[in-house]
Amino acid sequence: MNKNKNSKLKIVPLGGLEQIGMNITAFEYGDSIIVVDCGVAFPGDDMLGVDLVVPELTYLQDNIEKVKGFFITHGHEDHIGALPYVLLEVNAPIYSTRLTNGIIEHKLEEHNLLTKTRRKVVKYGQHINIGEFRVEFIKTNHSIQDAAALAIYSPAGIIVHTGDFKVDYTPVYGDAIDLQRFGELGKKGVLALMCDSTNAERPGFTMSEKSVGRTFDQIFAEHSNSRIFVATFASNVDRVQQIINTAHKYGRKVGVEGRSMVNIIATATELGYINIPENTLLDIDQLKNYPDEKTVLITTGSQGESMAALSRMASGMHKKIHVKPGDTIVMSSHPIPGNEKSVAHIINELSKQGADVVFQDTHVSGHACQEEIKLIYSLVRPKYSIPVHGEYKHRMAQAKIVRDLGYDKDHILMINSGDVLEIGEDGAKVTGKVSVGNVYVDGLGIGDVGNIVIRDRQRLSEDGIIIVVLTLEAKTARVLAGPDIVSRGFVYVRESEGLMDEAQQVLNEAVEKCEEKHITDWSKIKTTIKDALGDYVWKKTKRRPMLIPIIMEV
Amino acid sequence: MNKNKNSKLKIVPLGGLEQIGMNITAFEYGDSIIVVDCGVAFPGDDMLGVDLVVPELTYLQDNIEKVKGFFITHGHEDHIGALPYVLLEVNAPIYSTRLTNGIIEHKLEEHNLLTKTRRKVVKYGQHINIGEFRVEFIKTNHSIQDAAALAIYSPAGIIVHTGDFKVDYTPVYGDAIDLQRFGELGKKGVLALMCDSTNAERPGFTMSEKSVGRTFDQIFAEHSNSRIFVATFASNVDRVQQIINTAHKYGRKVGVEGRSMVNIIATATELGYINIPENTLLDIDQLKNYPDEKTVLITTGSQGESMAALSRMASGMHKKIHVKPGDTIVMSSHPIPGNEKSVAHIINELSKQGADVVFQDTHVSGHACQEEIKLIYSLVRPKYSIPVHGEYKHRMAQAKIVRDLGYDKDHILMINSGDVLEIGEDGAKVTGKVSVGNVYVDGLGIGDVGNIVIRDRQRLSEDGIIIVVLTLEAKTARVLAGPDIVSRGFVYVRESEGLMDEAQQVLNEAVEKCEEKHITDWSKIKTTIKDALGDYVWKKTKRRPMLIPIIMEV
Repeated sequence: MNKNKNSKLKIVPLGGLEQIGMNITAFEYGDSIIVVDCGVAFPGDDMLGVDLVVPELTYLQDNIEKVKGFFITHGHEDHIGALPYVLLEVNAPIYSTRLTNGIIEHKLEEHNLLTKTRRKVVKYGQHINIGEFRVEFIKTNHSIQDAAALAIYSPAGIIVHTGDFKVDYTPVYGDAIDLQRFGELGKKGVLALMCDSTNAERPGFTMSEKSVGRTFDQIFAEHSNSRIFVATFASNVDRVQQIINTAHKYGRKVGVEGRSMVNIIATATELGYINIPENTLLDIDQLKNYPDEKTVLITTGSQGESMAALSRMASGMHKKIHVKPGDTIVMSSHPIPGNEKSVAHIINELSKQGADVVFQDTHVSGHACQEEIKLIYSLVRPKYSIPVHGEYKHRMAQAKIVRDLGYDKDHILMINSGDVLEIGEDGAKVTGKVSVGNVYVDGLGIGDVGNIVIRDRQRLSEDGIIIVVLTLEAKTARVLAGPDIVSRGFVYVRESEGLMDEAQQVLNEAVEKCEEKHITDWSKIKTTIKDALGDYVWKKTKRRPMLIPIIMEV
Repeated sequence: MNKNKNSKLKIVPLGGLEQIGMNITAFEYGDSIIVVDCGVAFPGDDMLGVDLVVPELTYLQDNIEKVKGFFITHGHEDHIGALPYVLLEVNAPIYSTRLTNGIIEHKLEEHNLLTKTRRKVVKYGQHINIGEFRVEFIKTNHSIQDAAALAIYSPAGIIVHTGDFKVDYTPVYGDAIDLQRFGELGKKGVLALMCDSTNAERPGFTMSEKSVGRTFDQIFAEHSNSRIFVATFASNVDRVQQIINTAHKYGRKVGVEGRSMVNIIATATELGYINIPENTLLDIDQLKNYPDEKTVLITTGSQGESMAALSRMASGMHKKIHVKPGDTIVMSSHPIPGNEKSVAHIINELSKQGADVVFQDTHVSGHACQEEIKLIYSLVRPKYSIPVHGEYKHRMAQAKIVRDLGYDKDHILMINSGDVLEIGEDGAKVTGKVSVGNVYVDGLGIGDVGNIVIRDRQRLSEDGIIIVVLTLEAKTARVLAGPDIVSRGFVYVRESEGLMDEAQQVLNEAVEKCEEKHITDWSKIKTTIKDALGDYVWKKTKRRPMLIPIIMEV
C-alpha cells in the first residue's frame, strides 16, 4: 500500500452517533469499502411494538460490489446484533477475534445463516490485507473478553478505532490492553483517532474488573446463612467467572438462569474463556438438592428487563425459582440511564417477598473514563480526533478533553451519522451526506413498520379507536345497514352508555344528512362522519380516538 | 376529648403506599372521619393515554356522613391534586396553612369549584376541633413553604404525621422546623408516628436549601458573559427566590417561563412568600430589550417533561425563546428516578444548539435523610412506627432505621393501602381491608378508562389493529359485500402488498367455508375469521394485531 499524500479516505458512520447502539461505520477508499461493527439499537419508548432497530443500508447496497468485509471489535449486541439482517443484503466475510467469532456464529446459527456466510478468526497483532486497506487487531479491555481496537491502514493514512474499551492493568482473564502498540502506532503517525466517548463525562479512571471480585468475597462472607442470587449482565463473562470463584471458595454450588447468559457461558466454556471448577456448575433443577446456604444462582435481569429471569422471579412468575424470605439478592450492575424505574420496581417486588436486596457498590464500567481517554490520545497522538460511541453530550465531553490536551478546534471532528468525511494528510471535511436511518424489526418483519405505522400505534395507544361501519345500496346510496359503532381502548362502554348512545345519535344525524343531500361520494360521507363524531367526542371527553369509517356497498 | 384506654382508632391509607404519589389517609373514630392529604399520582409508562391517577373513593363514599374534613400538609400535586375530583363526590371543608390554601384555591378555581367548597386557613400551633378529633398544625421544612406536620389527637391517643419534611436549620424563608414541639408532644406520649420514608435509604442529613444559593453565586460569576437559563421545579419557591437574589446581585433582569411556575410565583408573590426587588422580574417579551448577559430566564422542565417549557426550547418548538450558542443552561434539580433518559435527551438537544449545560451539583432534596429520621423518632418517641410516603423499599429502609433505634418488630407497622389498622394503647392490628385502587383521569373522563381499556390500548400500541367487515343477507346469511380488510398500525400496506393479498385470500376462504356450511351464527363466523386470519398473520409476521370482525345485516 503506497501512501499518497493527496489522497483522501472516506469515513461514513451509518449509525451510532445520534443514539446509543447501532454502531456501524464504513471506510471507503477507491474501489474498497470495509465496515467496522454492525450493531442493533434497542427501541425507545416511542417505538411502539418494535423489537429491534437495525441500520438502513442504502449506502452499502448502492456500493455493494466494493464491500470487502465486516470487522467486528467485540461481541456485544450493539456491535454485532444487526449482522443477521445486514448479511441478507450485503454478504461479505466477517473478521473478528475468537470469542467474538464464537458469539457471532451462535447468533447466525439461530438465524439459519451459518452456512451461507464466511467468517475468519483473527489474532491480536495479525494484519488483514483487504482491497485498498490493511487492518490490524489490537488487544484492549472491555466488559467482555477478546475486545479489539483496529488500526486501519489506507493510502491516505492510518486510522485507529478504539472500539469500546477501558484500560484494565489487572484483567480477570487474559492480558491488559496493548498500550505499547498504541504508542508504536503513534510514533509511526496516525491520521485520526476514533475513540469511545461513553464515559467521557466521568473524571478519573475506571476501576479494574478484578476489584468487583473482592466485594463478592465480602458479600458472601456477610451472608453465609442464606441462598444468594447474583444478577448481572449476561455478556460479562469475567463477572460470572468471579462469582464462580467466590462460590467455589465458600463451598457453594452454582446455577445459571436466563437464556442469553446460558448461551454466552456455553460459548465461553467451549472456547476456554471461563474456568469452572469441577462439580461447581449445576443445572438449576439440581440446586434444590443442596441446602440454601450452599447455593448461588447467577441470573440475567439486573437492569429490570421485564422478560428476563430476575423479573419473572420478582413477580412470582418464574416456573422453577421461588424467592423466599431470607434470600440475598445481589444487584451486580449499575442501572443504565432509563432503567432506574424498572430496577426500583424489581427491588420493591423482591423486598415484599422478604428477600434482602444488596447493591454492589462498585461502579465498574467497561468504558474508559477521562484519564484513560487522555492516556490513549497521548500514546496515539493523532492528527485528528473523531469522538465516537456516545450521545452528543458524551462526544462533546470527549471533544472538551481533547481541547484540554491542546488540540485546536479544526482538528476535532464532530460528525453525524450519514456524513461523508473525507480525510487525508492535507485536510478533513464533510463533503456529502448519505441516506441513513432506523429500520424497525417487529417480529419477523424487517422494515415493514415505519414512522406512519408507529404514529398510528401512538395514537391508538393514547385514546383508542372508534370504527363506524355502514352498508349502502350501490345505485341509490341509500343506507341498508348501520351506521354501527365499535370502539376499542376508548372508554368502558358499559359504564359510558349515555356517551355512546349520544354518539350513535350524532352519527345517525350525520348519515341522514348525507342521505337527504343525496351525497354518493364515499370520501364526502366519510369526512362528514369523522367531523361530526370527532367534534362530539372531543367536546365530551377531550380525547381524540382514531376514527375509521368503513363503507360497504351491496 | 376523653382518653379511653381500650378504645381504638382506625387508620386507613387509601393510596400512596404502593406507588409514588396519591397520598391520602383516612382516620376514623366513632362517627368521625378526617382525611389527611388528597393527592394524584402521575401515570406509569404502562397507563397508556392516562393523564392523572386519582384514588378510588368507595370507603369515603360508604361513610360519607362521617367525613368531617380534609387536612392538607403542603401544596404539592401528590398531596392536593386529587381534591377537584374527590370534592365532587365527598364535599367536606379543607384545612391548610396559608400558601397551601392559596395554591388549592387556584386549582379549585380552574375547575370552577371555588364557590362550591369550604376552606379554612390554619396557623402553626392552632388546634382544630372536629368531631372526635383535634388536629394541630406543626411547622416543618420541605421543598415548598408552609409545610406542616399534623398532631392528630383522638380518644385512642395522639398520632403524629410528619407530612413530607426535612430539617432545615437555615431555611431561605420563614422558620426552621419546630423541633421543640415534636419534643413536647413526645413527652406527652405519642401513640404512633407516621414518618416520610422518601430518603430513608440515604445516610446523613439533607443539606439546607440555602446551600444552593451559594452555588448560584458561583455559576453566575463564572458565566458573566452569557445569557443564563435556570431550570427547576415549578413549586420550589425558595429556589426561585435564590435565583432572583443572585440575579439581582449580578444586575440581571429575570423572566419566568412555564405555566405552572408562573402560577405558583403569582400566588407566592400575592401572599408575600417571595420577595422580588423592584424592576427585576420582567415579562419574557421584554427580556430581549436587554443584553444577553444582563438576563436570566427561570423555566420549568428540569425533569425533561416533554410538554414543559425547557423541552420546547430544546427542540426549537418554543414560540418566544430560541436557544443559541453561548447560552448557559443550569439544570437545578436532580433527575427523579425514571426521568434520566428524558433529561439526557434534553441536554443533547441543548448541546447541539451550542448551549453550555451546567449541572448544579448539590443534591438538595426536600425530604429527610436517615439522621433526620432518627432525630424525629428520638424527639417523638412514639409507641408505634408507621413508615409512610415511599415505595416499599423506602419504607423498609425506615423500618430498618427504627429497628436500629431499638424498637422491636411488633411496634413497626408496615401497612398497605386499603388496610384498616386498628390502633390503641393496648395494641395495633390490621383488622380489615377496604377497596382501594387507581381511578384514571383521561381528558374529561374520570374512571371511564380502566384495566380493560388500558389492555386494549397496550395491544393496539404493540401490533396495531386489523378490522374485517362483512355484509350478510339477513335470511340466508349469504355474503352480499366484503369481506374487506382495513388495518392501522400493523404494517406499511403499500410495501406489504403480498402479505395483505394473501391475508385477503385466507379471509375469503374462511368466509366461503362458513357459507358452504350454512353457518348463520354470527359468533361462529367471527371466530372462524379471527382464527384463520390470526393464525396466518402470526405465521407470517410473529405479530398479534387486534382482530375485529364486524358483521352487518341487510
